[in-house]
Amino acid sequence: MAQYRKGANAERELTHKLYGMGFSVVRIAGSGGTSLPSPDILALSPTKKLAIECKAWSKPYLNIRLSQMQELEEWATKAGVDFFIAWKYPHKGWFFLPKEIFKRTEKAYNISIDKAMKYGIDITVVTGKQKQLSKKS
Amino acid sequence: MAQYRKGANAERELTHKLYGMGFSVVRIAGSGGTSLPSPDILALSPTKKLAIECKAWSKPYLNIRLSQMQELEEWATKAGVDFFIAWKYPHKGWFFLPKEIFKRTEKAYNISIDKAMKYGIDITVVTGKQKQLSKKS
Repeated sequence: MAQYRKGANAERELTHKLYGMGFSVVRIAGSGGTSLPSPDILALSPTKKLAIECKAWSKPYLNIRLSQMQELEEWATKAGVDFFIAWKYPHKGWFFLPKEIFKRTEKAYNISIDKAMKYGIDITVVTGKQKQLSKKS
Repeated sequence: MAQYRKGANAERELTHKLYGMGFSVVRIAGSGGTSLPSPDILALSPTKKLAIECKAWSKPYLNIRLSQMQELEEWATKAGVDFFIAWKYPHKGWFFLPKEIFKRTEKAYNISIDKAMKYGIDITVVTGKQKQLSKKS
């Protein structure tokens, strides 16, 4: 069972999607010499400012290291933008996950694909294109 | 007379300066596959969102191609951020120049170093750290 980690392709795909929705988008390669790590993508519009960390991952659980989550959250707070982990799951699409819906364990923030599919936010909602739909049951 | 075009160094210097002022900062390498060119630097804080195009230039006049200025302005408008050309002049420092203070010619937006020094905005003002000082005479 081949592992699904087309990270760069996934990032590019999401960049184009957000661009197509009218955002100014940048993919961020490195830290730019600053000491905090930056998110993968910034998508900006007059009404929505999003910092996004992309994860293309086909396993039933996604783990984000405690330090990475905290540093990205700090980056976004300092920037005054919203922060999401965008999980791309093969054949299921993208799920936008705020930190709050992860479970914190000793070493990582953890979420299952079932929970991500149930509580993850759709791109149309994250981008303000439509209001949150009623929760899937 | 050696030309002064230390572009990358100047960008890095300004990035660190803005980072030191409490901003989340990214240097943007390329267009990320989107069709509009992006600015060199994004500096974001909860109260200020800045898109900056850096120019290290030692000549008495700075020219920005019409198309480049228009594309950058469009990028910033779509993003809902403020846009400045930051001109670094050797031994004089940085001058933040809004598009409005350039003179539009047939092919370019043009400004002299004298005008940039007189009407350019200081980094402390652009970043909201202090109000605009009274104009130099």
